[in-house]
Amino acid sequence: MRAVVLMSGGLDSCVCAGIAKNMGYDLNILFVKYGQKTEKKEEKCVKKIADYFKADLKIINLGFLKDIGGSALTDTIEVTRDDKGIPSTYVPFRNTIFLSLAVAWSEVLNAKAVFYGANSVDFSGYPDCRPEYFKTFQYLIEKGTKKGDIKLMVPLANMSKSEIVKKGIELKLPLEYTWSCYFNNEKACGKCESCKLRIKGFKEANYRDPIEYE
Amino acid sequence: MRAVVLMSGGLDSCVCAGIAKNMGYDLNILFVKYGQKTEKKEEKCVKKIADYFKADLKIINLGFLKDIGGSALTDTIEVTRDDKGIPSTYVPFRNTIFLSLAVAWSEVLNAKAVFYGANSVDFSGYPDCRPEYFKTFQYLIEKGTKKGDIKLMVPLANMSKSEIVKKGIELKLPLEYTWSCYFNNEKACGKCESCKLRIKGFKEANYRDPIEYE
Repeated sequence: MRAVVLMSGGLDSCVCAGIAKNMGYDLNILFVKYGQKTEKKEEKCVKKIADYFKADLKIINLGFLKDIGGSALTDTIEVTRDDKGIPSTYVPFRNTIFLSLAVAWSEVLNAKAVFYGANSVDFSGYPDCRPEYFKTFQYLIEKGTKKGDIKLMVPLANMSKSEIVKKGIELKLPLEYTWSCYFNNEKACGKCESCKLRIKGFKEANYRDPIEYE
Repeated sequence: MRAVVLMSGGLDSCVCAGIAKNMGYDLNILFVKYGQKTEKKEEKCVKKIADYFKADLKIINLGFLKDIGGSALTDTIEVTRDDKGIPSTYVPFRNTIFLSLAVAWSEVLNAKAVFYGANSVDFSGYPDCRPEYFKTFQYLIEKGTKKGDIKLMVPLANMSKSEIVKKGIELKLPLEYTWSCYFNNEKACGKCESCKLRIKGFKEANYRDPIEYE
């Protein structure tokens, strides 16, 4: 039984892959470089994590998302929230692009699941991280693929960051290979929204975060 | 009022762009190179058509789809149909990938529509060309984007090929710049499913097809 796992090199996607492996899936890992500011660091992390899982890794170069901009992750935009509470780190329709690439690969591999480490507790501000979005995407897979038999799995959807950390420890995952910082490539900044969430998560879980901060 | 038009350089996408223009939209045109066998020819056609419409053109290089294969358009697979009647020219989840890229660009441009020249009369064999698929994708846009206000327009959905030809003539579109052949880059083969449909369409519409065949 095979699954494609979308991997960013972050804590969440590493734990998501661990859950998939633990469920008995053989993993194919997909990483998308889209001009995010931490692309190089993420790529290193993803390679180490893929090695750890002995998984086939495919890396997609999608400069288009940086090219069109519109996000604080790819563009010189300040990190704020709009009047609907959507953070400027939202990357336009990114999750749909990533999921559709993962589903395409799954169809060719005859994989039965796509795993995505999205989390709606911490990131409910992103429209493409909400439960109804994922439900609709599942329906799209059923309508738009040859066999309609690929399951979209979002196992972290309702977990808090500290629960994710605990799960990672429980599964003995190499969390030292993971990267969460939005902006830095060497030592994590410790100040961006993503670093803060990670630090809080480790603290609440009562584990030492193995990565280095500035 | 702005729209993003997905363009393959084919008859259908050219007529689709003409319909959008005729409705009063300013056009941004998106072309995806994905290792399809007629990629080079398509690119030339798309450039000419974008010039004709005085539209901004963006070209995405997505070698991934050729890399994973699984389609007679990108791989050394024979053109057949499977037991569900799905042709082997189906490219895994391609339309979802293309549409999600177009929606991402629309969000940044604040465009209000994505136009796609898919046609469910001739290509009902493709799961991602059916009305229910497009309805689900529209719902996904509403759930998964910042404003949820982008309309997916599939104006050729219920038109026959001869109606599409007639519409192109009526709108005085440069059909001589369009390419439909699945396999050749110089003169169209006249034998593949796509050529046959085009030839039949022009014949039934009683117009001369301006492109050259072998």
